Amino acid sequence: MAELKGFMLPRTPGGRASIVPAPPWHYSGDVLTIEYRTDPSNVAALLPDGVEPAGDDPGAVAIIWADWQSCGDDGSELLDPVRSQYKECFVVVRCARNGELYSRCVYIWVDKDFALARGWYQGYPKKLGSMWMTRPVTVGRAGPRLETGGRFGATLQANDRRLAEVTLTLSGPSESGGFVNALPMLHSRWMPSIDPSGPAPLDELVTMRSRDVELGPVFTGGATIELFEAPGEELADLAPIETIAGYWRQVGATFSGGTLLA
Amino acid sequence: MAELKGFMLPRTPGGRASIVPAPPWHYSGDVLTIEYRTDPSNVAALLPDGVEPAGDDPGAVAIIWADWQSCGDDGSELLDPVRSQYKECFVVVRCARNGELYSRCVYIWVDKDFALARGWYQGYPKKLGSMWMTRPVTVGRAGPRLETGGRFGATLQANDRRLAEVTLTLSGPSESGGFVNALPMLHSRWMPSIDPSGPAPLDELVTMRSRDVELGPVFTGGATIELFEAPGEELADLAPIETIAGYWRQVGATFSGGTLLA
Amino acid sequence: MAELKGFMLPRTPGGRASIVPAPPWHYSGDVLTIEYRTDPSNVAALLPDGVEPAGDDPGAVAIIWADWQSCGDDGSELLDPVRSQYKECFVVVRCARNGELYSRCVYIWVDKDFALARGWYQGYPKKLGSMWMTRPVTVGRAGPRLETGGRFGATLQANDRRLAEVTLTLSGPSESGGFVNALPMLHSRWMPSIDPSGPAPLDELVTMRSRDVELGPVFTGGATIELFEAPGEELADLAPIETIAGYWRQVGATFSGGTLLA
Amino acid sequence: MAELKGFMLPRTPGGRASIVPAPPWHYSGDVLTIEYRTDPSNVAALLPDGVEPAGDDPGAVAIIWADWQSCGDDGSELLDPVRSQYKECFVVVRCARNGELYSRCVYIWVDKDFALARGWYQGYPKKLGSMWMTRPVTVGRAGPRLETGGRFGATLQANDRRLAEVTLTLSGPSESGGFVNALPMLHSRWMPSIDPSGPAPLDELVTMRSRDVELGPVFTGGATIELFEAPGEELADLAPIETIAGYWRQVGATFSGGTLLA
Repeated sequence: MAELKGFMLPRTPGGRASIVPAPPWHYSGDVLTIEYRTDPSNVAALLPDGVEPAGDDPGAVAIIWADWQSCGDDGSELLDPVRSQYKECFVVVRCARNGELYSRCVYIWVDKDFALARGWYQGYPKKLGSMWMTRPVTVGRAGPRLETGGRFGATLQANDRRLAEVTLTLSGPSESGGFVNALPMLHSRWMPSIDPSGPAPLDELVTMRSRDVELGPVFTGGATIELFEAPGEELADLAPIETIAGYWRQVGATFSGGTLLA
Repeated sequence: MAELKGFMLPRTPGGRASIVPAPPWHYSGDVLTIEYRTDPSNVAALLPDGVEPAGDDPGAVAIIWADWQSCGDDGSELLDPVRSQYKECFVVVRCARNGELYSRCVYIWVDKDFALARGWYQGYPKKLGSMWMTRPVTVGRAGPRLETGGRFGATLQANDRRLAEVTLTLSGPSESGGFVNALPMLHSRWMPSIDPSGPAPLDELVTMRSRDVELGPVFTGGATIELFEAPGEELADLAPIETIAGYWRQVGATFSGGTLLA
Repeated sequence: MAELKGFMLPRTPGGRASIVPAPPWHYSGDVLTIEYRTDPSNVAALLPDGVEPAGDDPGAVAIIWADWQSCGDDGSELLDPVRSQYKECFVVVRCARNGELYSRCVYIWVDKDFALARGWYQGYPKKLGSMWMTRPVTVGRAGPRLETGGRFGATLQANDRRLAEVTLTLSGPSESGGFVNALPMLHSRWMPSIDPSGPAPLDELVTMRSRDVELGPVFTGGATIELFEAPGEELADLAPIETIAGYWRQVGATFSGGTLLA
Repeated sequence: MAELKGFMLPRTPGGRASIVPAPPWHYSGDVLTIEYRTDPSNVAALLPDGVEPAGDDPGAVAIIWADWQSCGDDGSELLDPVRSQYKECFVVVRCARNGELYSRCVYIWVDKDFALARGWYQGYPKKLGSMWMTRPVTVGRAGPRLETGGRFGATLQANDRRLAEVTLTLSGPSESGGFVNALPMLHSRWMPSIDPSGPAPLDELVTMRSRDVELGPVFTGGATIELFEAPGEELADLAPIETIAGYWRQVGATFSGGTLLA
């Protein structure tokens, strides 16, 4: 009997049917980040055992939209872009463990299965949703320029309800693209027991960070944010108290694996 | 720090954001099954170590479309049917282990994230796709009746390519709804290491079967089947040699967990 | 030069590419109707010149969800159900013209292009949306039975916002399936001039009714309804004052054309 | 009774529910064009009465993918990009009438209803489909640069079948972005009679061209093209004999109306 091959399921004789190829995974895309503060207790309530809130600005949250093109190491998906492009909206907080500061994705929605599978591997708790973000333009009148006064919107829908909408009005260039999603990620990987009364056979705390990060110029500005209640969601519990700032930039990065912490 | 709750990710203070609630999960739906034979080596090649082909009719395959309504134990999704209904197409073979015969799902596509998550928990290697199946009707001229001569079609698309299409022409009632998907399931649960060079921390062989199965009358008939090549898929390698039969019936069932075998 | 053929665009040498074949069009499906009253001025405001509100119960509105299977006269779409099945949500009021009472569809959303095209031909002002309605089941625990106490929900989303949601709790069988959508339709067909400053070259008042109507048993019950505001929509202006009743039934019908009134 | 308002259906008291606002409509987007030759008789067969093939290169065809951001004159959709962005794939040929040369769109698929409605107004024979095109990137490894050697793919799916796929490999900058889609458009607007046996009340030949066209730099290169058969489509009848060239550029334009020719 031949060995089954494939990085993830389905594992097959040829190994080509896996929902996603083995890392490295390459990403190039547009990223719109809105940072704001919620009551710090809302952030603390989302951290697993043994993980503490960040000491500084513990209520800081980033809600981020990204429009990615991505591929495995042979890049074959790039010529069949239905298998390469996806959009996502995700929410990041900061936390600390053993004296190290981390970023942690607490909610995330994507619109393709390969992206969902990569996320489950990485501990991004991905669901499916519909995400849209205004694109900057260089010609014509149907969009903002990447310059002072440029206005962007972004929205999130899942299960036929709008969950979030934000706007960003550019005030100028920026050195920083935000501080909430800037640290190594601290994620939980989790799969419950096939006997639901048993302990989870996969219950890991992992960390990872991208390599070969290549960043375009950052534009910053003022932001608005609205989060909406929905059954099966707790996103709106991260209610904004005040907006910090918004950012737009292009990002390239490669993911080639992470490290088990516990 | 409060404990994080939720059957699957994302795990949260309220436990309501989990992509799917804890079992039991209830299902009611329409199921169209086409059984056929492929070269037995094609089936054998899809079995994991320690699992043998079925001794009898080892090349038998079932390709199945289902249009489900489903819910957790409180049934709350039923009034918000975007969170309750989904369609799927899946491929089942038979196999043996330690003298026991099993059914095994080797490929499956669904169109909702909650269904995908349940599948990954159960070892169904789910991807996203677009599935359509003719519905029987009781009034009007836009569909077959559940009676001799009624004709049904079903199709599967993923990543903007058609992967399979079948037809079923009813010849009459049947005692059986097919033999390939009639056994306890033998599935692999698999999650690779966050360090891709390490061993998979989740690599289980599990078995499960539905309880409280309630079956409507079965209709059988002759079938046609076509499978199409696509990058990132190996479905077409299960090429049909001969068609066995097709079946249509309504199925109700509850899933409340499985058993770890190895 | 050969003549271009096809009932609608695109018109081609073969006539097979038309977005929809010529009538007759056959329909079989499930229909969930909620009838309610709004302020009669809201209904009157939606009627074209020369059309009056119904004298009796002029604020009555029906909001209807339907899950259709449909086909042209050769039925070829039925074996390729992606081209046959669609869902819709539509809003109907009553009106009078020259002493005749009519039903009139004032808003409608569908999820397939062939359905949208048929609607534009018929004067149904179709947009795209996402519609879901609970299905009755005969086996299993994942759905209501068609019997007293059975509970159904239905929802409408467009442009990533939920626009409407209703529930229906069955109280028993009914002779009637409602009175608002029971009359010949009075619709406006409209296409503005290619020079936007000119008069519309297509500005018709038409009437139509289905033939070969075949109805399943009707179930009635109490209903709830919520309409939500959204940019680019005026549905929520038809705000409910009181609910009348809800209905569920299966409907078969054929459309073979209408009549120009003005 | 108040007058109904709105550029297109549904026409309402507020005029805000129209599927699309009145022109002008502004567009900014990425455009990938592949030009090729088919047998000239295939082009001639798609021209209406009174319209002749182009005298020069009468078999030339352009198949074009575009990823647009668009809006009405107040630009309100730009902050709610689900109502602003859409993708399309369309096929253009050239023709002549009364000694004038024109471009003519013979097939087109889009993925939003507002785009479909604008097309029906303009005589673009729009259907719904799923379109994807590789995006150039400026950072990271997940995409081509706009430079020699950059490789792009684009695909079209409708009704769960792939209809077309192309590739473009950039060889350098170009003065021209192609010659097939470079002329004023000659389109047919068509709506059959509500009594299908009667003459079409809307049967117009119209012309239009964009204003305020703003073009980014053009990149050209070698191309491949495949068209696939599907029921309900005649695209594959425009079979390629030889590829001419491909082009990628950004385009901004405004549409403010056209002119009736006949």
